[in-house]
Amino acid sequence: MSVLQEISPNVRNMIQLESTVLAIRARQIKEELRQKVRKPYKEVIDVSWGDPHRAGVKPLSFVRQVLSACLYPQLLNSDTLPVDVRQRAQTLLAGCDAGSVGSYTAAAGISEIVCRVSEFITRRDGGVPSYPEHIFISPGSQWALTSILNVLVNSEASPRTGVLTPVPCYSTATLSIMGLGADIVPYYLSEEQGWELQVEELHRALDSAKGACNPVALYVINPGNPTGHVQSRKSMQEVIRLVAEKRLFLLADEVYQDCVYGENSEFVSYKRVLAEMGPPLSDTVELASFHSASKGIMGECGLRGGYVELVNLDPAVMKYIYKLFSTYSCAPVLGQIALDLMMNPPQPGDPSYPLYSEETQHIRSTLAHNVKRVFEVVNSLPCFCCQPVEGGAFAFPRLHLPHKAIEKAKEMGMQPDMFYCVRLLEDAGVLVSPGQDLGQKEDTYHIRFCIMTSEDTMEEALRRLSSFQTQFMKVFS
Amino acid sequence: MSVLQEISPNVRNMIQLESTVLAIRARQIKEELRQKVRKPYKEVIDVSWGDPHRAGVKPLSFVRQVLSACLYPQLLNSDTLPVDVRQRAQTLLAGCDAGSVGSYTAAAGISEIVCRVSEFITRRDGGVPSYPEHIFISPGSQWALTSILNVLVNSEASPRTGVLTPVPCYSTATLSIMGLGADIVPYYLSEEQGWELQVEELHRALDSAKGACNPVALYVINPGNPTGHVQSRKSMQEVIRLVAEKRLFLLADEVYQDCVYGENSEFVSYKRVLAEMGPPLSDTVELASFHSASKGIMGECGLRGGYVELVNLDPAVMKYIYKLFSTYSCAPVLGQIALDLMMNPPQPGDPSYPLYSEETQHIRSTLAHNVKRVFEVVNSLPCFCCQPVEGGAFAFPRLHLPHKAIEKAKEMGMQPDMFYCVRLLEDAGVLVSPGQDLGQKEDTYHIRFCIMTSEDTMEEALRRLSSFQTQFMKVFS
Ligand SMILES: Cc1ncc(COP(=O)(O)O)c(C=O)c1O
Ligand SMILES: Cc1ncc(COP(=O)(O)O)c(C=O)c1O
Repeated sequence: MSVLQEISPNVRNMIQLESTVLAIRARQIKEELRQKVRKPYKEVIDVSWGDPHRAGVKPLSFVRQVLSACLYPQLLNSDTLPVDVRQRAQTLLAGCDAGSVGSYTAAAGISEIVCRVSEFITRRDGGVPSYPEHIFISPGSQWALTSILNVLVNSEASPRTGVLTPVPCYSTATLSIMGLGADIVPYYLSEEQGWELQVEELHRALDSAKGACNPVALYVINPGNPTGHVQSRKSMQEVIRLVAEKRLFLLADEVYQDCVYGENSEFVSYKRVLAEMGPPLSDTVELASFHSASKGIMGECGLRGGYVELVNLDPAVMKYIYKLFSTYSCAPVLGQIALDLMMNPPQPGDPSYPLYSEETQHIRSTLAHNVKRVFEVVNSLPCFCCQPVEGGAFAFPRLHLPHKAIEKAKEMGMQPDMFYCVRLLEDAGVLVSPGQDLGQKEDTYHIRFCIMTSEDTMEEALRRLSSFQTQFMKVFS
Repeated sequence: MSVLQEISPNVRNMIQLESTVLAIRARQIKEELRQKVRKPYKEVIDVSWGDPHRAGVKPLSFVRQVLSACLYPQLLNSDTLPVDVRQRAQTLLAGCDAGSVGSYTAAAGISEIVCRVSEFITRRDGGVPSYPEHIFISPGSQWALTSILNVLVNSEASPRTGVLTPVPCYSTATLSIMGLGADIVPYYLSEEQGWELQVEELHRALDSAKGACNPVALYVINPGNPTGHVQSRKSMQEVIRLVAEKRLFLLADEVYQDCVYGENSEFVSYKRVLAEMGPPLSDTVELASFHSASKGIMGECGLRGGYVELVNLDPAVMKYIYKLFSTYSCAPVLGQIALDLMMNPPQPGDPSYPLYSEETQHIRSTLAHNVKRVFEVVNSLPCFCCQPVEGGAFAFPRLHLPHKAIEKAKEMGMQPDMFYCVRLLEDAGVLVSPGQDLGQKEDTYHIRFCIMTSEDTMEEALRRLSSFQTQFMKVFS
């Protein structure tokens, strides 16, 4: 007796990521190191996730202090914590039912926090209004993305529902789209132009879908994961015109909005660009924008707090979305609070401001250092080439693998970039993701690694990568 | 332009709960009270949710202390917190990547915690083994239930997938099943027998589904929500034989396993009963059992920590489930930790034990008091009748409404029990749920309210209910 025959075909069709295999091997290697097996390195550097704390970034004291006071309000009565922390915790607890972070909240989140999220968005977008009724807080932004896709994708439709999805793309998003029973309609980002999104390519992708599926949505990640590209206003305007013309729902994954390093790069939200384009576009284009407490400077992935803001949706659709969110009760309260703190950090004059400011500046200067060094070092290596990282959490350099290495990989039944990642892990103890998990043009090879690390970790990772690459090229050329 | 035409029909078909309307009105009334509008009560008592903290139960100090130390490890260096709390926090942090609760975890949860969950289950089930690989931690048990249903329900199947679902039933479960595109196959619990599950009724329900849909699973809630019934071993054995015969997947919602009050009632898990029945049943019946940090004595709903244990599933199916969980990253770390603390409370001799024991005993004696008083008071009221609450968080008494009240409700375009709930809220300031949201036999009427409150809250709620009911009967008979 097995449900396998009956398993939903959408779930059955989900691909297996190679990074899972690598992660398992990394765990074994760590265990071997603990058991004193000799290796050319003392520990594994894991830069395969977009997880700042895991990669060595320190949590912000202010955030952790407020959260711990919300959990254990006895701390409010002592002077262990700064006075503005205690005040903040008190205000937040007043928004929780019965003053406990252990109560369920409304399905869209604690209403006071939802209001502050909308105020943040309005400030960020230079006054373009944001409405609390259009915001839903979720256990991480990925969850919100999957839920909105769930509304858009009709798995019973024929032809099947299509979603325009970038290549390369953050792999969990691709998995979600496939898991819901939609077809991926790939559009390729232009590596040579710093991973720019080119609207002609969107046209090509739409043409290619004709007869195969019915594209209903365009998924964009800005700043990009894994590309590190930050979109220009002009490019966004072109995208908006296209989605309006083709009647596509625009899914804007903007979780890295706070992580922009390029000197000439600036994050502008799709919502703002849309509003500034004026009617009829600003009244009609349907947009979902996602943000998260996982990815900014605070990097609180484990608390699971994200939100989606919905623009120009039919009120009837909003009602369905509300119901869908209700079936999961609510987002974790501490994740909701983390979002609030991210959007309302201490201000000059607050007792917590000096430390907060020191900690965040330290993180920002570390990130600036890291992206600069990655660009320098990777581009100085033989057969490696990296576009500038303008934003986000990752570098996605291209590998020009020698013929012999490609042959060897085939012999071992692996994709060439996976073969490279396996060797890098075994020989140098650095865990990165192979480009094939994220998608890449045929016959091109890449690796992805997180740049949100401490300076020391990044320097050590680059040192290991450099000597590994030199050695690897020697062996295979 | 609107996606409404394209909205997934499963989502479109989800019903609207009347309790949403009531909750909105309750919020307005609270606002009116704040603005000093005169009412016959000073505050609204909200016993409509299964949310202990909201209803006045206090969080456990030990739990909150450990969680706050995990968030803000500086607390480990002071003696603000008891030494066993600090040790526990240290152990837990060692299981988090980079020692931060802000790191993502494995998709199924932190492996140390998953192991301790399996140890708990083994202890609970008198030694029946539990395997960490079969356990997935999720952001609340509801989420896990929906995910497992997602694997079972093939929304493209024809005939449609059916799920045997109790009447009455916790409404979010019903919404989830419908939202996934399955058909509800209702089976009625026997109110006269204290809401017993009768296996003949399951046969009747299966017969009724013939030609309409293809039932693949049986959903059981034990202890019951809203019924308060605790299943006997004998009844569970009958259920297991039936699911084996009919090749149904058994979904056992056991989130109230720690809340049993009946003198002759005892919680036994489906997993244990299945194991004790021996082969071939114990090797073949596919079972998912759900548990949660929301519902026990700790009542931490807002942290969102739950798990599912899967028994006898095909390894290939397990792989798909793993992938599905991966698409949401992971459960909130603090919810995972709360689960761990629930399963591993302080032991005699630990510095935190005396306070922990005092707090939990206080809650248990309060609950015992509440269920006793609810039974006494409700059954003493005219036209009200309540089965004994043996377990769970709710009472679900039946209302014998006078003809005139039913007429009046119809006149106002409401279901009679909704009409009753509206009046109870307006006139007495008590917020409960109408039976229609949970399901009930035609022409019977019920209300549901939470019994996990402080003694004072319960007494006040019962006082208001009593005088309201007397008044209501006067007006309408
Ligand atoms: C582009 C992008 N979107 C969404 C997410 C998910 O973040 P969250 O933790 O908010 O679910 C990630 C995580 O890596 C990401 O890179
Ligand atoms: C029977 C039942 N199952 C599951 C849940 C959901 O609990 P969680 O908070 O773990 O999602 C509830 C909540 O009320 C419930 O009553």
